[in-house]
Amino acid sequence: MYRVDLNCDLGESFGVYPLGNDEEILSVVTSANIACGYHAGDPATMRRTVHMALQRGVGIGAHPGLPDLAGFGRRKMDITPREAYDMTVYQIGALGGFVRACGASLQHVKPHGALYNMAAVNRKLAEAIAEAVYDLDGSMMLFGLAGSELVKAAERIGLQTAHEVFADRTYQANGTLTPRSHPHALLTDPEQSVEQVLRMVMESKVRALSGEDVTIQADTICLHGDGPHALDFARRIRDRLEAADILVEGFRMQEM
Amino acid sequence: MYRVDLNCDLGESFGVYPLGNDEEILSVVTSANIACGYHAGDPATMRRTVHMALQRGVGIGAHPGLPDLAGFGRRKMDITPREAYDMTVYQIGALGGFVRACGASLQHVKPHGALYNMAAVNRKLAEAIAEAVYDLDGSMMLFGLAGSELVKAAERIGLQTAHEVFADRTYQANGTLTPRSHPHALLTDPEQSVEQVLRMVMESKVRALSGEDVTIQADTICLHGDGPHALDFARRIRDRLEAADILVEGFRMQEM
Amino acid sequence: MYRVDLNCDLGESFGVYPLGNDEEILSVVTSANIACGYHAGDPATMRRTVHMALQRGVGIGAHPGLPDLAGFGRRKMDITPREAYDMTVYQIGALGGFVRACGASLQHVKPHGALYNMAAVNRKLAEAIAEAVYDLDGSMMLFGLAGSELVKAAERIGLQTAHEVFADRTYQANGTLTPRSHPHALLTDPEQSVEQVLRMVMESKVRALSGEDVTIQADTICLHGDGPHALDFARRIRDRLEAADILVEGFRMQEM
Amino acid sequence: MYRVDLNCDLGESFGVYPLGNDEEILSVVTSANIACGYHAGDPATMRRTVHMALQRGVGIGAHPGLPDLAGFGRRKMDITPREAYDMTVYQIGALGGFVRACGASLQHVKPHGALYNMAAVNRKLAEAIAEAVYDLDGSMMLFGLAGSELVKAAERIGLQTAHEVFADRTYQANGTLTPRSHPHALLTDPEQSVEQVLRMVMESKVRALSGEDVTIQADTICLHGDGPHALDFARRIRDRLEAADILVEGFRMQEM
Repeated sequence: MYRVDLNCDLGESFGVYPLGNDEEILSVVTSANIACGYHAGDPATMRRTVHMALQRGVGIGAHPGLPDLAGFGRRKMDITPREAYDMTVYQIGALGGFVRACGASLQHVKPHGALYNMAAVNRKLAEAIAEAVYDLDGSMMLFGLAGSELVKAAERIGLQTAHEVFADRTYQANGTLTPRSHPHALLTDPEQSVEQVLRMVMESKVRALSGEDVTIQADTICLHGDGPHALDFARRIRDRLEAADILVEGFRMQEM
Repeated sequence: MYRVDLNCDLGESFGVYPLGNDEEILSVVTSANIACGYHAGDPATMRRTVHMALQRGVGIGAHPGLPDLAGFGRRKMDITPREAYDMTVYQIGALGGFVRACGASLQHVKPHGALYNMAAVNRKLAEAIAEAVYDLDGSMMLFGLAGSELVKAAERIGLQTAHEVFADRTYQANGTLTPRSHPHALLTDPEQSVEQVLRMVMESKVRALSGEDVTIQADTICLHGDGPHALDFARRIRDRLEAADILVEGFRMQEM
Repeated sequence: MYRVDLNCDLGESFGVYPLGNDEEILSVVTSANIACGYHAGDPATMRRTVHMALQRGVGIGAHPGLPDLAGFGRRKMDITPREAYDMTVYQIGALGGFVRACGASLQHVKPHGALYNMAAVNRKLAEAIAEAVYDLDGSMMLFGLAGSELVKAAERIGLQTAHEVFADRTYQANGTLTPRSHPHALLTDPEQSVEQVLRMVMESKVRALSGEDVTIQADTICLHGDGPHALDFARRIRDRLEAADILVEGFRMQEM
Repeated sequence: MYRVDLNCDLGESFGVYPLGNDEEILSVVTSANIACGYHAGDPATMRRTVHMALQRGVGIGAHPGLPDLAGFGRRKMDITPREAYDMTVYQIGALGGFVRACGASLQHVKPHGALYNMAAVNRKLAEAIAEAVYDLDGSMMLFGLAGSELVKAAERIGLQTAHEVFADRTYQANGTLTPRSHPHALLTDPEQSVEQVLRMVMESKVRALSGEDVTIQADTICLHGDGPHALDFARRIRDRLEAADILVEGFRMQEM
């Protein structure tokens, strides 16, 4: 039987600024990547989001980002592997504090935004992040772009990984995402997105923009929770996966 | 036999800005309060300071402060107990990440600056901080001003505490510190400081400014590491304590 | 003929986080207090808000706050007058940069949140802020709570001031606002608010909670722009003022 | 007669963290680049540094940097030209506030660290920064690496520029600095540095690492103030320039 995890970035509010529909999306996904205060999130938001995720039995992950609140962690910064290691330990530790205060434990770590993208292609950064996760708690999983340097580094060091795929992005012949600058980077037809996801999960294949079939490992699907459209689409994906008898579940079950 | 712990604030550098003589003072004290990035400290400094403390067998504590790097956490802020809880969990978690990455565990928590002072007199804040420590890991100790609301709240919730005394400050008849605004708030004669410390440890008494003897519990002595004078004074205190056959040691021994 | 200014806090978005209905409220008010990056706002938001205000001929003010983005500048901080002076100069200067880049100039300064409240009652802080405004450009006005220490300090140093009144707050017999902790701190009936405003503008009087009439100077009325209700209320106030032949205008006219 | 300006980065302290020997170096240089709070500096430091510079008749420049206090503005960030424009206006405005509060005006702007380096080679960023300076006050000068995109963009828009050269760095055949990663990037012999500077000022030439002579415009020389060695070297450079009858002065004279 096929199985797949659905993950979403959560806890991205800050101070008086609300962001996202965390409650609603938590009824759809099976893993939550919770911001840790560097690119988004604050201690109160972290506590509340951890509680909500535990109440729904959703797997909790730390979502460390670059120290760039003004840029939401989306601007690449020229950091050293050592700096990547340190900021990853810091943020996982901080979120882990709220998780442990609830008697639970972290399921996974997934870097955010520019840190995720840099670690996908930069082996040294990938190794530093994997080492941070491993040093802190080798039983945590590392989520990364399917086939990327990040999941490779995690596997080399002995971490359990989840290869992540995207429902709304197109792929290139070498298995990487089509850059956002490309006119066909995004899939805008929801039905086409659903078909791509089903095929990635059941056949481990995706049709590249160039027309070739590419092998891809789809352990977890990245969904979005901001906006009613995104929420509807997330529900549709989940419904169609379940209709195809695919088991939708996280990697570790725990409740408050 | 008498025993006492010597603690010092450490890891207060930030980015390119160095602060303190952490290496030297670590050879004198038995407990280190390490800044967690809110009032001082950054991930790299936290990692390095944790390593240094572990190498010397010094007990490691989280030193959470107010989110005020520009003011070094010394400016009182009108925070709610809930905010105090959240920022304490966050910072303990973050420092704990570096400690656990070394296979060690936190010995204690000591709030910094204005947070320490507010929690000494504000029962609600004191309870929130004690609850944060307890929720995260009830085996950690809480350090607070001797006789303060903070240690009382910690004891009520079931935490082990260390009553902290000061070598270089004078006391009032009610057992509290003479406010810094008072002309005789500070003891400037090192010998007088040493005498005050010895008496607090061996007799649990301190002579108040008003001339009366006040009962005080001295589990740990706060020392300073910045400046050669402070370092010399710290060494003198330790020498005199040992010369008086007082056991100088932390509360929990661990090494890397 | 009576005249009054209507002001509103604007430019409080930050990074990816939107806040407020700036465009809509700018069609109602005559003065805009624009956040300067300490409690809210960022350079891009400041530039855009300055442009929008100039396009509508709305008077532009700097809205300096405490350095507390996480708390939106609403938490009192124990700052010195010197620190208040410095952070006020910094923030006015920064916003003034965007205004001057458009060939315009600042009409006024209005402190935000906790800084506003502290300066209303603390004479030293009030004087420091007034001095900062005066040193930077003595032709700028200072907005402050009607009758407060802030407007008094501004008048002593020779600044033009605007005494600010509130449509949705009740007053005490001494002319100060009823604290928010009081059950009747807020006026919830819009019609009652309108009546209070009309009377403050035309008779310089307000009926205190205790039933007495208090003299009050109403140069500018504080309105809110967040939420459709606030916007409707702002429009109603303006309509009723104009229906009563009260001239609604800012203090200095300029356009891009 | 030859003339040259000597500039130095100043006002880089932050909160309790001191940095540099600002008072001493201000007796040597003729232009001061003062940090504006993004990569270093805070409002109190900015005020004090502006005062000190004015007292010595040293030309005052804004020294805007990337919003990265933890990295001292040295880590490249992937910002857009629009973001560069906005953060430059913000920081110049903020520092300008302190300068105008003293009745003086800014002489120049010099970007810091990674922003300086990116603007030296990225035409779009260079144009955005030049536009920010021009929009704010077209009478300010822009300092940039000699021959770089930044000074070219400034000259195209009509700003007065100062081409900056380095005493302690070697040059490549195309007139750019040898990257720091190169083993011979730095000149370590003070006498050799002095000779390089004298030749750049008097002959507009520098001998590249490859042995060829390259034409270079030397309007201002970048000196460093941190460390007694740097200070001694700065004094030696100034002495040797004056001994060679080169006029050492800033571009605009003003005193408090």
